[in-house]
Amino acid sequence: MITVTIYNEFVHEQEIDSIRKIYPQGIHGCIKSFLSSDENLQIQTATFEMKEHGLTEEVLSKTDVLIFWSHARQEEFSDEVATRVQKHVLQGMGLITLHSAHYSKVMRRILGTSMTLSWRDNDRERLFCCNPSHPIAKDVPIKIEIPHEEMYSEYFDIPKPDEVIFIGWFSGGEAFRSGCTFTREKGRIFYFQPGHEAYPIYYMTEIQKIIHNAVYWCSHNEAILGSSKNILRKNIHAEVPAEVSLSLSTKENLK
Amino acid sequence: MITVTIYNEFVHEQEIDSIRKIYPQGIHGCIKSFLSSDENLQIQTATFEMKEHGLTEEVLSKTDVLIFWSHARQEEFSDEVATRVQKHVLQGMGLITLHSAHYSKVMRRILGTSMTLSWRDNDRERLFCCNPSHPIAKDVPIKIEIPHEEMYSEYFDIPKPDEVIFIGWFSGGEAFRSGCTFTREKGRIFYFQPGHEAYPIYYMTEIQKIIHNAVYWCSHNEAILGSSKNILRKNIHAEVPAEVSLSLSTKENLK
Amino acid sequence: MITVTIYNEFVHEQEIDSIRKIYPQGIHGCIKSFLSSDENLQIQTATFEMKEHGLTEEVLSKTDVLIFWSHARQEEFSDEVATRVQKHVLQGMGLITLHSAHYSKVMRRILGTSMTLSWRDNDRERLFCCNPSHPIAKDVPIKIEIPHEEMYSEYFDIPKPDEVIFIGWFSGGEAFRSGCTFTREKGRIFYFQPGHEAYPIYYMTEIQKIIHNAVYWCSHNEAILGSSKNILRKNIHAEVPAEVSLSLSTKENLK
Amino acid sequence: MITVTIYNEFVHEQEIDSIRKIYPQGIHGCIKSFLSSDENLQIQTATFEMKEHGLTEEVLSKTDVLIFWSHARQEEFSDEVATRVQKHVLQGMGLITLHSAHYSKVMRRILGTSMTLSWRDNDRERLFCCNPSHPIAKDVPIKIEIPHEEMYSEYFDIPKPDEVIFIGWFSGGEAFRSGCTFTREKGRIFYFQPGHEAYPIYYMTEIQKIIHNAVYWCSHNEAILGSSKNILRKNIHAEVPAEVSLSLSTKENLK
Repeated sequence: MITVTIYNEFVHEQEIDSIRKIYPQGIHGCIKSFLSSDENLQIQTATFEMKEHGLTEEVLSKTDVLIFWSHARQEEFSDEVATRVQKHVLQGMGLITLHSAHYSKVMRRILGTSMTLSWRDNDRERLFCCNPSHPIAKDVPIKIEIPHEEMYSEYFDIPKPDEVIFIGWFSGGEAFRSGCTFTREKGRIFYFQPGHEAYPIYYMTEIQKIIHNAVYWCSHNEAILGSSKNILRKNIHAEVPAEVSLSLSTKENLK
Repeated sequence: MITVTIYNEFVHEQEIDSIRKIYPQGIHGCIKSFLSSDENLQIQTATFEMKEHGLTEEVLSKTDVLIFWSHARQEEFSDEVATRVQKHVLQGMGLITLHSAHYSKVMRRILGTSMTLSWRDNDRERLFCCNPSHPIAKDVPIKIEIPHEEMYSEYFDIPKPDEVIFIGWFSGGEAFRSGCTFTREKGRIFYFQPGHEAYPIYYMTEIQKIIHNAVYWCSHNEAILGSSKNILRKNIHAEVPAEVSLSLSTKENLK
Repeated sequence: MITVTIYNEFVHEQEIDSIRKIYPQGIHGCIKSFLSSDENLQIQTATFEMKEHGLTEEVLSKTDVLIFWSHARQEEFSDEVATRVQKHVLQGMGLITLHSAHYSKVMRRILGTSMTLSWRDNDRERLFCCNPSHPIAKDVPIKIEIPHEEMYSEYFDIPKPDEVIFIGWFSGGEAFRSGCTFTREKGRIFYFQPGHEAYPIYYMTEIQKIIHNAVYWCSHNEAILGSSKNILRKNIHAEVPAEVSLSLSTKENLK
Repeated sequence: MITVTIYNEFVHEQEIDSIRKIYPQGIHGCIKSFLSSDENLQIQTATFEMKEHGLTEEVLSKTDVLIFWSHARQEEFSDEVATRVQKHVLQGMGLITLHSAHYSKVMRRILGTSMTLSWRDNDRERLFCCNPSHPIAKDVPIKIEIPHEEMYSEYFDIPKPDEVIFIGWFSGGEAFRSGCTFTREKGRIFYFQPGHEAYPIYYMTEIQKIIHNAVYWCSHNEAILGSSKNILRKNIHAEVPAEVSLSLSTKENLK
């Protein structure tokens, strides 16, 4: 069982009518909805206005993967909670940060750069996969059309990613490293650019697939054989020939 | 089911008594023996003297992971078969090359460098893990003692690896990048230095564990939850609110 | 002094009128022209129809950086010469491959992958720099407009580059890793996508700047201070206190 | 001219007799001494007990490369100054951190991991170069003997380095990634393990050479041709044929 905590600021959806219509249960509600159909995942949610933003030591200590969406309250986010999230990531908790969460305190602390980029609302995106053998790209097409998306453009000030999995093309004339992985100590991090709150991007099957794959990858459980097989690792061993010692003290012993 | 083909030159074991005593069924026999206890793996072997070295188009087209040990007959290895192995790796077949196979035609073609190193027989090695969150290092200790091993030393002329997972320390005063991964198109490659034919290294539990992990990783099936869980990915979906269209044609539609 | 050899196939320019008008001295002539104004560079050219394509052992052994443009005669290129170029790259010769030379025998041998990509003629490109601190990007703008260019698109089947320096955006809806570096043994390689023969791309100041920077980087002479300074490395030393020995045999000696 | 600021805590040298004998002017004094013989470098020093540790906004804004040694006062180091150093690194100031400075606040902030490692005093080290074509390794031997050094061992909890340049071998049985580079926004960082205060390591010619090379690399001025050549980049240009326009509006214009 993989325990997933979805943190969503949950401000825009309550304040802006057009956004509430898209995500009546919040972005976290939408993500919880599609992930819940996988019975291997146990899912809980957290939002900004909860005590400690819902990300208490108790919650994080039981979380395998934290999904994180934020925008309007990034500066008001608790320093203490940001440090706590960083600590758990280093200890092995997976982290998936979405869209504007590139600039969250959590990401700036973990990655240590300014995390700035260029942007412009109301564009059209095509995601290209440039790393098709990565587990996050499993069963994902090389090209995904996102009919409406906020534009994000280079230069994106991040440390060199371990892997760039997706490059975004925007119709207005920009390009962006839209899907990047980072490893920090035991923790795996996936930053994924799509998901402006004003467009129903998290309902797209391909976007759901990528987030679903990322949950497995970030929890160190990235791949399952084919479509209907269960694979269970067994203990393995081999018989050592009687005359051979594993700690033989000289090469001559072999003769 | 993961289909594994173990290629072993199988020359030293037939020609040299002391080595035959260690590996009476050949190195391939030993590796097959310990991997066979995992029922998810279907295993076959191939040796140098077989027709096309046992690596025919038919065999390779059904192989998920090729394990490769070679030394004495590397120059005599068929160019055509080397090219065929390269083609299958690019198409997604996993490749685990062991010890002196760093200098096989297969590796020189795929990686394009000279693959040279320094070496000296009869030393003692400690393997250090410098990438403990990698699937190949799962449940592997940070430090592994190999009481007898041939020394391999830097500078090792390889392309920059995707990941260095193990660094080898040798008592005679050398260090080496002993476990390295490379991705080439769809294929995952793991080069692993331990395994000189004159010492019973492939009987060591930790070495078996690493090769076992690598089989899963190279076949894109790298991780399974915990010790006794089966995880099966399900199809996922989320209900789209009635008033929202995934291909909405203007932002205004949302208002 | 850096010795640069420019290899250009020189077929299209002789066979097609519209292309000859753009490059009356050939693509190699154009590149030689702009590089020649740097007196630190000593430049020679080579073309397909020359004996051994002009890339004899004698020529390559005196070359610090080889610039390479090819397209129509890639399959007819000598296997022996391709192997020779590979050898010199591993020994430290820099290599800059331009545009369709991604698919040259030289590149396929050195990098070991299929080197395939998607393409379509007659598009418009914007180059984005995603690695502004790299020497090849020195004094290069974040965004470069190329009014006419052949479109190249992902998935581009290359090994993971050491660095991705430029991402190309194409108006038809594609994205591409347009500037990538690779290190192989002592050799530095820069692949740079711009330069379809039917458009005057190598006359663009920004493209010339990038190639010029790459000559320095590939020759391991990548950076010079400011605009008018000469920097010369001096031998350095420090006085060792009389009572201190560099090879002191025990810590106690210090007391 | 490259402006170098050397920060040294300067505590051990004042408190412990045996260390003062080795570095009577402090570690910063020794490093300043050998770098000063390069007239391209302008050098100043800073120590812990100075106001703002000598690393004021004014000092850092004029610094091209900051060399940083610290150990005994790492927790007492000012948070504000650590943040200031981070800011300047992101804006392009080079950073060379030595030995125990791996655990400085500056490094933990910039890299975001715990920066922990294993250690033991009084060992012997051999440095192996595994990246001989890197500018920091220019004219540095593949193997360097350090007769006395504190042992540092894996697992070293750092983000994946851009490049691992040196691997350290220790006689007691450990290995370590001893020379690593990181790029963060415009700033280049080199972490270099040698330099325990109780041994005269910074008097070793090879160690001086590496630090000297790193100053050039971190300041984006990494390479100079040969031993006695001055290279000055010139502006370059090429004549555009009269009939060709760089912004030609259709392909047909060419015909």
